[in-house]
Amino acid sequence: MRIAVDAMGGDHAPAEVVKGATLAAKEQGLEVFLVGHEGLIMQELARYNGSASNIEIVHTDEYLLETEHPVLAIRQKRRASVVVATKLVKEGKADAVVGAGSSGGLITAALTTLGTIDGIPRPLVGGAFLGFARNTVVMDLGATVDCQPDHLLGFARIGKVYAEKLLGIGNPTVALLSNGAESGKGNAAVRDAHPLFKDSGINFIGNVEGSDIPTGRANVIICDGFVGNVLEKFSKSLGETIAQWFEQALQNRLPRSDIEKMTRDLKAATNLADEVGGYPVWGINGVVILCHGRSRSAEIAKAIAQAKLAVQQNVVGHLRSEMTAVP
Amino acid sequence: MRIAVDAMGGDHAPAEVVKGATLAAKEQGLEVFLVGHEGLIMQELARYNGSASNIEIVHTDEYLLETEHPVLAIRQKRRASVVVATKLVKEGKADAVVGAGSSGGLITAALTTLGTIDGIPRPLVGGAFLGFARNTVVMDLGATVDCQPDHLLGFARIGKVYAEKLLGIGNPTVALLSNGAESGKGNAAVRDAHPLFKDSGINFIGNVEGSDIPTGRANVIICDGFVGNVLEKFSKSLGETIAQWFEQALQNRLPRSDIEKMTRDLKAATNLADEVGGYPVWGINGVVILCHGRSRSAEIAKAIAQAKLAVQQNVVGHLRSEMTAVP
Repeated sequence: MRIAVDAMGGDHAPAEVVKGATLAAKEQGLEVFLVGHEGLIMQELARYNGSASNIEIVHTDEYLLETEHPVLAIRQKRRASVVVATKLVKEGKADAVVGAGSSGGLITAALTTLGTIDGIPRPLVGGAFLGFARNTVVMDLGATVDCQPDHLLGFARIGKVYAEKLLGIGNPTVALLSNGAESGKGNAAVRDAHPLFKDSGINFIGNVEGSDIPTGRANVIICDGFVGNVLEKFSKSLGETIAQWFEQALQNRLPRSDIEKMTRDLKAATNLADEVGGYPVWGINGVVILCHGRSRSAEIAKAIAQAKLAVQQNVVGHLRSEMTAVP
Repeated sequence: MRIAVDAMGGDHAPAEVVKGATLAAKEQGLEVFLVGHEGLIMQELARYNGSASNIEIVHTDEYLLETEHPVLAIRQKRRASVVVATKLVKEGKADAVVGAGSSGGLITAALTTLGTIDGIPRPLVGGAFLGFARNTVVMDLGATVDCQPDHLLGFARIGKVYAEKLLGIGNPTVALLSNGAESGKGNAAVRDAHPLFKDSGINFIGNVEGSDIPTGRANVIICDGFVGNVLEKFSKSLGETIAQWFEQALQNRLPRSDIEKMTRDLKAATNLADEVGGYPVWGINGVVILCHGRSRSAEIAKAIAQAKLAVQQNVVGHLRSEMTAVP
């Protein structure tokens, strides 16, 4: 298996990306393309495993900046590292691409180079984000902010395949996130999506509310990327705030190491993204994994492991079949 | 001061509502109109303070059911208790109205009977919902689900007056909740609202993200009622989930009573609504306080105290002046 990695993406690129990719190449038995500035990558590689036969550098001078508008920047920087890495998948040279930012850059590169699967109007970023509800994936977490009802239905089909193939859940339950359980509740897109979901053949259980996310009421919870993004960031921040509060409340009452373990566990449970290394960009004609910009080598290696799993499970192929079966 | 209370609204009406109103009448030095079925109310009143001179029953046979569509139900039940209670404010017989549901019923009654303040296109329900950020009000929490940019601007003006008059914050900071800090980020309504906010004369600090809510980055955080509703319910549920988890993790490591206090504090900190008894419905030509449907007597009494404070602070008058000053 061959994974293309954008060596220039993320807050700690290229150092942490190269380190993480080296780790993955060594431990996961796969080949890695490191795409970016050869000199800089070589410099980092020299620290670890400069002559490894399963790491190949693909040189390019250009890369995107976090502050750039992704669509405009990619139009101008045709050799941007994220574009070159994605093209390796398009050309069949790599099986998947992994990048740590900008998120808009990776999604735009994936859309323009690989395109979406037939019948999926928009891509999504999604997965489980709460350790308390590991079998509940929330989609979208930020790829498509303004959603039409058919976008939401596309997300539901993606979520079904994701839950089946990557979480091993048979006939996963799918719900629409809304401001009330009744079918008439929701914003315009959710209200209009409701009948589409009902007639879709997926295992639709109706609307769920914000309170149903931590309790894992459905396996797949569908929302637009605006709501999902706000929720995921709120969850992580609330978890950190509560962890701090508990740390103070428990001070001198439990051994230091126990408090540290508890707060660490709590932070992880309210922010699964760091544990899995990132979230897949689904709906694309190829496996694309988006890491958080703040990713360190450990998260990069975990994201590469996720890419490997998605390729092995042929998630993209299964989603194509799912879409072909839609009447 | 005279407060009209819908004695028939809420999951535990009329018993808990009558009990809470009796408590408030006794302790807060005010007069209460209990609106609803006289026989049922008398029966409850007999348990507490049947002959109190500061409690008056306003009889009506009709009341709304939680499952009814509020607009249609109010059109048919012209003597529904929530409508009669709201009319007491319209007629100048009461200074404020308090109700525990249905929320749609109270908001519809307020809109049709009292109307919105000139320049405020839609009402909102809002307030602080995190104990970790008591000086951060999030608006809207569910009254207006589909929002146009000018609705969001109206919410911001309400939030400013609320933070100034009820929280005592001078020149409160106002932010738009979005999926990124940059001004171009957001769904269509948020993106279009951004320039309106910039030119509004309010102390607008730009976009904030979900992660900025628990840290209290702004005094007033504006979002549509769909997003706010999902967030508030998610917060309460996540708090309860974490409280359970801590309870298990701390078992036999701390005294039972300490664990109970900590989990109780955590639940309160992730769900301020119960502490304050409910949220005001703002933007209406009159003081309207909406309690949670699950409210018990303590919450009803706290909501009545909130109504009293809003009247004393003349929040509605201040909002009217604020709107008159808008160019």
